[in-house]
Amino acid sequence: MKHTTIKDIAKKLGISASTVSRALSDNPDIKEETKKLVRKVVKQFNYKPNPIAQSLKNNRTTIIGVIVPEIKHDFFASVISGIEEVAYHSGYTIIVCQSNESFEREVLNTNSLIQQRVAGILVSISQETKNGDHFRNVMNGGIPLVFFDRAYEKIPASKVVIDDEKSAGDAVSYLINKGYKKIAHFAGPKSLEICKRRRNGYINALKKAGLTVSKELVLYGGLHESDGYKLMDKLLKENIKPDAIFAVNDPVAIGAFQRIKEAGLKIPGDIGIVGFSNNKITSLVDPGITTIDQPSFEMGRKAAEILIEMIENGKGSMKKPKKIVLDAGLVIRNST
Amino acid sequence: MKHTTIKDIAKKLGISASTVSRALSDNPDIKEETKKLVRKVVKQFNYKPNPIAQSLKNNRTTIIGVIVPEIKHDFFASVISGIEEVAYHSGYTIIVCQSNESFEREVLNTNSLIQQRVAGILVSISQETKNGDHFRNVMNGGIPLVFFDRAYEKIPASKVVIDDEKSAGDAVSYLINKGYKKIAHFAGPKSLEICKRRRNGYINALKKAGLTVSKELVLYGGLHESDGYKLMDKLLKENIKPDAIFAVNDPVAIGAFQRIKEAGLKIPGDIGIVGFSNNKITSLVDPGITTIDQPSFEMGRKAAEILIEMIENGKGSMKKPKKIVLDAGLVIRNST
Repeated sequence: MKHTTIKDIAKKLGISASTVSRALSDNPDIKEETKKLVRKVVKQFNYKPNPIAQSLKNNRTTIIGVIVPEIKHDFFASVISGIEEVAYHSGYTIIVCQSNESFEREVLNTNSLIQQRVAGILVSISQETKNGDHFRNVMNGGIPLVFFDRAYEKIPASKVVIDDEKSAGDAVSYLINKGYKKIAHFAGPKSLEICKRRRNGYINALKKAGLTVSKELVLYGGLHESDGYKLMDKLLKENIKPDAIFAVNDPVAIGAFQRIKEAGLKIPGDIGIVGFSNNKITSLVDPGITTIDQPSFEMGRKAAEILIEMIENGKGSMKKPKKIVLDAGLVIRNST
Repeated sequence: MKHTTIKDIAKKLGISASTVSRALSDNPDIKEETKKLVRKVVKQFNYKPNPIAQSLKNNRTTIIGVIVPEIKHDFFASVISGIEEVAYHSGYTIIVCQSNESFEREVLNTNSLIQQRVAGILVSISQETKNGDHFRNVMNGGIPLVFFDRAYEKIPASKVVIDDEKSAGDAVSYLINKGYKKIAHFAGPKSLEICKRRRNGYINALKKAGLTVSKELVLYGGLHESDGYKLMDKLLKENIKPDAIFAVNDPVAIGAFQRIKEAGLKIPGDIGIVGFSNNKITSLVDPGITTIDQPSFEMGRKAAEILIEMIENGKGSMKKPKKIVLDAGLVIRNST
């Protein structure tokens, strides 16, 4: 007897294979009704969404490799949770590696995952990564690859991202509408595409409002709290007084926040502040920090879903890379 | 002497390097016969694809399985970072699973890790776990097992913990010395050993100071922010007014903190508050929350080190379980 596939179930129900797959992974986008139907047919067909059959066929494991810059970063921890959730319900496990923002380590992580014959790989690239040969190796080896948040742009792989430029523009336009005129940007490392996009959003918003873009108000640095703290310290020491800070991410915003408070300045009275990511912490500090709500858990879910679809549909699905852009709204709190 | 490579072995046997590599990774497509030959030559050449040689001997991978209740919980994210750090430098990768505090899912995770022939398993048990048969299976299968933070006490496995009772006692004694007299305890779920120990520490400290232990001041609940919020809400509604809260962990402390602030009460003036773990957030809220500094990253490192030692030293090392108790000091901030 022929082995039942997801496609058979989809055909029987007159829905797409991807809907079946998402129904099986209990995706909240799929109606309960549909899920019930799918489960019923799965039972009838005695379909086993156990990916071991697939894994045997392509000589791979049922492991998904995940490479992030840092596991304990709130954003990535939450993405990983989302990935694990979907993987678990689809019969996969996840190997988690951290690059520690090092290109070399990212390459080693990637090679190790290939060696371990993972079924697919999910990556958010390190801030040092400029060369993508290791990712080309993955794809040339027929291993599905999906980027999330930080994509390597020069190869045609699927990715799940937000519109960083638009979101940054929204945040800065909001500041301008609130009356802030001298807005500094703590921009992160120059090399990272997502940082460039957020910087572009900042510049566009200023230009659109007829404000000048001043070089001394765009400061580059890392992505941690200590970086935000140092940059704010630098501004204070140089007696450059912006009336608001737009930070490339929440840890940097928090670092600036701490230095501003230490200086006895008032938020939002003396300086307004906007972060990026909506890490838990931004809602708990006083005043709460206005930020972009980057849907981290959902990003993990989505990236895992696309990857598993690619794994289960075979090589054909790798030829048409998907780009999923998740919504990221502005969360307004008292820091502005 | 030239380092032996897979190619040397392939040449010697007149087979392809890829066959050697697949034989070494125990690929099911390679005949047992070939595998035996490869192993023999590997031995002759003293070839060490460290730690693959080891993995071959025991027919396992170089993967360490990690089971935590929740990846995105600050404490566990940091433990996982520590584990990955040590694993990476020792040539291992980690599969991370979350039980979501569900016993059933923990059992499924464990079985999946066994099936994937992991080299060893690190676990922090779910709050539902009362039966340890799945852990016994792991140990009976000769797979090294180390618990961290939340250990299953009824089997003789190694563990890395802190002295929860002593730390809790220290925290409560500190509150008493500060003049607080009516100290409530938000105690977490009754089932978890670490919660029992923290509760014992609380009770001991009160008794030592000659204070009465009042049942209405010990409240049970979950381990999340929402639980702390609800319990504080309950106290306020019932008009029970403690002068301090000792929370079983930081998320619970943060939840209580939010509810107290909402009620317009002053911290530490009206109510003092102490958490447990030293999550990042406790240093960033205003006022900062006094808490026990639980060395999460170090706990991950240590647990991984012990496990890898057990993996590499073979079965003998499993007979003498180790108990590592890490130091956890009190971090005093402005909430008390």
